[in-house]
Amino acid sequence: MNKNELKYIQSFAQKKHWTEESVYLIEGPKMLEEALGANCILKKIYATQDWLASNGPDQVEIEEVDALMLSRLSQLHTANQVLALVEKKPAQKVNYANRLSLVLDGIQDPGNLGTIIRTADWFGIDHIIVSEDTASVYNPKVIQSTMGSCFRVQVQVENMEQVFIENKLPVIGTLLSGNSIYETVIPLTGFLIIGNESKGIRTTIQSYITHPVAIPKFGAAESLNAAVATGIVLSKWKMQ
Amino acid sequence: MNKNELKYIQSFAQKKHWTEESVYLIEGPKMLEEALGANCILKKIYATQDWLASNGPDQVEIEEVDALMLSRLSQLHTANQVLALVEKKPAQKVNYANRLSLVLDGIQDPGNLGTIIRTADWFGIDHIIVSEDTASVYNPKVIQSTMGSCFRVQVQVENMEQVFIENKLPVIGTLLSGNSIYETVIPLTGFLIIGNESKGIRTTIQSYITHPVAIPKFGAAESLNAAVATGIVLSKWKMQ
Repeated sequence: MNKNELKYIQSFAQKKHWTEESVYLIEGPKMLEEALGANCILKKIYATQDWLASNGPDQVEIEEVDALMLSRLSQLHTANQVLALVEKKPAQKVNYANRLSLVLDGIQDPGNLGTIIRTADWFGIDHIIVSEDTASVYNPKVIQSTMGSCFRVQVQVENMEQVFIENKLPVIGTLLSGNSIYETVIPLTGFLIIGNESKGIRTTIQSYITHPVAIPKFGAAESLNAAVATGIVLSKWKMQ
Repeated sequence: MNKNELKYIQSFAQKKHWTEESVYLIEGPKMLEEALGANCILKKIYATQDWLASNGPDQVEIEEVDALMLSRLSQLHTANQVLALVEKKPAQKVNYANRLSLVLDGIQDPGNLGTIIRTADWFGIDHIIVSEDTASVYNPKVIQSTMGSCFRVQVQVENMEQVFIENKLPVIGTLLSGNSIYETVIPLTGFLIIGNESKGIRTTIQSYITHPVAIPKFGAAESLNAAVATGIVLSKWKMQ
């Protein structure tokens, strides 16, 4: 492998490459399997002999690398057999009226974002709108922590206010003053806003909420983790 | 500050100190506030002038340090005004019969463990049993990610099987073959087992489950994050 290619792969650790490049980096046999299963277009695979012995998708450029080179290419603590560059899917126009879309308002932590995407996928949600200041879905830490859900859930940066104005649909948001999720009916379609880990939903966005809800607290924790809160609200949404 | 003391504080990055020492490390104004609010005994505080200007608990040894020294003492990416050594609380005998206790079977990720403790605290659970191979609650990463809930929730390493045998109480566990949480009554008291992130509940422990439950899947994610699953089951437990 030449030096430029090595440097290029390593550059996916850097923020600017997540937006500028048309591809993103995935790692490990499980992620490769999920990407191929979801009909993602792989631009190139870098794999050790181990992985290649039992895998070898057609029509993808594959380069065999040794363990040392793989660890140099990898962003993981322990490189795991294979990594690949995957083409970003073009944004699909979605019909907001017949689904519940998540709206992430400033989720900062990559692990949280990944876990929220995975949780959405579990509950059958396939579209997520993110504010510009939310972590990038193409951050390798986010991609890896989705455990493959990133291939099935479309995540799109949008102007939240514009989306709410253009689509006159129910907007659910968790607010301290909201109605207990256990005592209210959560609309089946529309938007569910998840706020920033420490600041919650920003004031300018709160005014668009048509259905303020709250997860009642029975103990003393000051707040719930954003992904946990997402799971609890979506569970109630599905079970009602 | 002498070199030995500096080294000692830094040693809390190491696993063996989490079990061997009678104190653990906490960082940041918020954690200090929560620790003092929960009547924890602080052995020593190291703080910058900033923090000391508006804080200064009585009867605690306090050492002023400059920003550079704080960053050398700190385990955080960005040191945050203050850190302290807190005395571990002695294990309290609990009456398992009149509460729901969580049982964590091999939770590996410090962030997951911290988030589970925080989620338990939200739902009013004050006792958690952890298997020996669960991450240490005294790992600074766990402590920080509980956001103060570690001061209110007692976390105790126990032999899970022995606890189940000695206390003939309902044992709830999430299993793929379990009954939908939406269609079953979750016992109000007893034990709720949360399994390892990738392996779930180990086979030898599964046989103690009296109430197998499952969170139905509506999409395609292979699994839910352990903390998200904990939140969903506890939410159902509280709202039924």
